[in-house]
Amino acid sequence: MAHVVDLKAIQDAYARLSSFLHLTPVLTSTTVDEKIGRKVFFKAESFQKTGAFKIRGALNAVLSLKSSNPNLKGVATHSTGNHGQALAAAAKLTKIPCSVVVPENTSLVKIDAIKGYGANVVFCKTTQQSRNETCERVAMETNSVIVPPYDHKDVIAGQGTISLEFLNQVPDLDALIVSVSGGGLISGIACAAKSLKPEIKVFAAEPEGKELEKSLRAGKRMWPNPPRSIETIADGMRTQQLGQLTWPIVRDLVEKIVFTVNDEEIAAAMKFIFERLKVVVEPSGAVPLAAAFSPRFKDVLHENESLRKIGIVLCGGNVDLDCLPWIH
Amino acid sequence: MAHVVDLKAIQDAYARLSSFLHLTPVLTSTTVDEKIGRKVFFKAESFQKTGAFKIRGALNAVLSLKSSNPNLKGVATHSTGNHGQALAAAAKLTKIPCSVVVPENTSLVKIDAIKGYGANVVFCKTTQQSRNETCERVAMETNSVIVPPYDHKDVIAGQGTISLEFLNQVPDLDALIVSVSGGGLISGIACAAKSLKPEIKVFAAEPEGKELEKSLRAGKRMWPNPPRSIETIADGMRTQQLGQLTWPIVRDLVEKIVFTVNDEEIAAAMKFIFERLKVVVEPSGAVPLAAAFSPRFKDVLHENESLRKIGIVLCGGNVDLDCLPWIH
Repeated sequence: MAHVVDLKAIQDAYARLSSFLHLTPVLTSTTVDEKIGRKVFFKAESFQKTGAFKIRGALNAVLSLKSSNPNLKGVATHSTGNHGQALAAAAKLTKIPCSVVVPENTSLVKIDAIKGYGANVVFCKTTQQSRNETCERVAMETNSVIVPPYDHKDVIAGQGTISLEFLNQVPDLDALIVSVSGGGLISGIACAAKSLKPEIKVFAAEPEGKELEKSLRAGKRMWPNPPRSIETIADGMRTQQLGQLTWPIVRDLVEKIVFTVNDEEIAAAMKFIFERLKVVVEPSGAVPLAAAFSPRFKDVLHENESLRKIGIVLCGGNVDLDCLPWIH
Repeated sequence: MAHVVDLKAIQDAYARLSSFLHLTPVLTSTTVDEKIGRKVFFKAESFQKTGAFKIRGALNAVLSLKSSNPNLKGVATHSTGNHGQALAAAAKLTKIPCSVVVPENTSLVKIDAIKGYGANVVFCKTTQQSRNETCERVAMETNSVIVPPYDHKDVIAGQGTISLEFLNQVPDLDALIVSVSGGGLISGIACAAKSLKPEIKVFAAEPEGKELEKSLRAGKRMWPNPPRSIETIADGMRTQQLGQLTWPIVRDLVEKIVFTVNDEEIAAAMKFIFERLKVVVEPSGAVPLAAAFSPRFKDVLHENESLRKIGIVLCGGNVDLDCLPWIH
């Protein structure tokens, strides 16, 4: 089935990106292997530039725009979180002006981070409508192209470069566990991984309330409209619905069994990663290990002896160190 | 001048060790490079087995003992901290019985970690005399060989393997900044690095109260006796005096300028490493970056334009995550 992104697009993205970004290391832990009963490999995107994988997609989008339009005047987006920072950093790396629209209640820390990359910060009201309208107005005024956080082929292709590196570093992976929110990360990863290695299984890990499995089993979008946010400490994963472009890829390439974890499990996995892997991860980054520790994953392994090497993507490490969830 | 350890001993150690241990990654940060004005490379020993470099020395000692004495019955040490864990882990990896003598006021967390590696824990009184006597008695009773924490040629050679990896990963390093306590780490590192690359500069970073520079400038041991402990949050670096074997190596191979940092600087560097490098480090592991941020290091760089690539060893990450120094 034809998707908006294919292996060639991801390989092209990697050729564009790799000189700008870190080749993030793969870590292992005997304790984790003993606890899960399989060899587990962690792709540590916390060590990526800007502290999260998001720079891959944002930078691929900016570089693609620049090469197809040498007169590109700027890029713009609206974001309260990592995507705003990632686009600002991508624009800085490629010397393109960048505007980021943020709701007026956004924390100063995040605004400072975006400004730190030299982007122009524009405030809007907190409604989705104001965010969209302000972003469109700013893009028009500055002659900029809007880069969305996940539902864009170049963004998806950029995130997919993780699979190229990971399967090069650990060629015999049998399965991957990946966080899912809007779906940019998991669709890119699944697209590259399944093209290179059709027998690999890609599992989604989600916070409670997302209900991806229901849609996957039905083979169609079963989420209630208008789109909702999820209550979870995984602040990078509050979008309930997948995007229009990411959904068909996830529907076709990701396993139907989805691992759902609650805040307590996420916080425990996060502390475990700090303690044992010595990696700073944000709650979203801990969701796949929380999934791997779940009884349901144990059942899956029990029924699938052939899943011997498991890859986990630690997607980012941008966490407020003054507010760690295990310290009260 | 002949030292107790040479490059060949360190290369032999690496041949023994490398299949048991992690090749720890080297990380970089644009923010750090901009702040210091040089390219900085971090050798992340937090990701080493047991969470710190100490396993290198302990394992080399155990493997050397085993190969020279196939009937080795066990190893023993006294320790309140990382060395006890490292020796226990080394003994587990090599299937040798291990006894660790700990003072009766040692925290339960540390005792559990040592027991977790299957070692036999023996309690003693909190005095240095009781520690030594108990350790000797236990060694005799169990027919074990005592492995000291730093003042031993195989321990020094094991720690020196860090230089072999680091200079292989970043061949054109011009200087290294290394924590110094008993001196096992810095003497091993200096010995290998200066043998492979005589023009490299090895700088020591110390907590306030250690006063290594005074001894280095005098060319002889200037510390008061009996040996004292230093008050510092860097709990792996409370030994004031270098060892009898480590001192001559440090005296001959390490730069006379020593960077001294206080608790506040250590805590700030530690938080910076969590925040920007996304690596969990213990206070001792943050001491070299605190040194690199000091005005005195800036002066050294100003006078030495040729120091373009700086290597920093993040020596370990075993910290109580419920008690981070920036959270009150």
